[in-house]
Amino acid sequence: MIKARVTVTLKNGVLDPQGKAIEGALGTLGFDGVEQVRQGKVFDLELAGTNASEAEQQITAMCEKLLANTVIENYAVEIL
Amino acid sequence: MIKARVTVTLKNGVLDPQGKAIEGALGTLGFDGVEQVRQGKVFDLELAGTNASEAEQQITAMCEKLLANTVIENYAVEIL
Repeated sequence: MIKARVTVTLKNGVLDPQGKAIEGALGTLGFDGVEQVRQGKVFDLELAGTNASEAEQQITAMCEKLLANTVIENYAVEIL
Repeated sequence: MIKARVTVTLKNGVLDPQGKAIEGALGTLGFDGVEQVRQGKVFDLELAGTNASEAEQQITAMCEKLLANTVIENYAVEIL
């Protein structure tokens, strides 16, 4: 079995209202010095098989097709 | 300025319907061999200051108070 982590983050320049809201909330809670917060997603996958390079290829295809919106998001695949 | 990444994931045993839905969708798209998908959140923070250990302490407090629900979620802080 292969474990992998996919991290999907917004591209630079894409507005992130959720991140802005968190930034505001942290300020309200008294955390000073928070300059920016951006929120992304993480997917922890378990795949059958033992071939890591094949799994990485398959996961990249999953990102392109489903896990990330490549117009506004970047993704990173990490085999654990 | 200090950059940090906080990764929040569901604890083992906590049901993840969103992950299950993604698992099903990947199967429908023809990706075989996907055994499990679990979704989490990632926060990219930028903090003022240059003291990494102080920043890490502050971010841990943010996780406890706002970013993670520690009843059902684990968090990991990584100073970049």
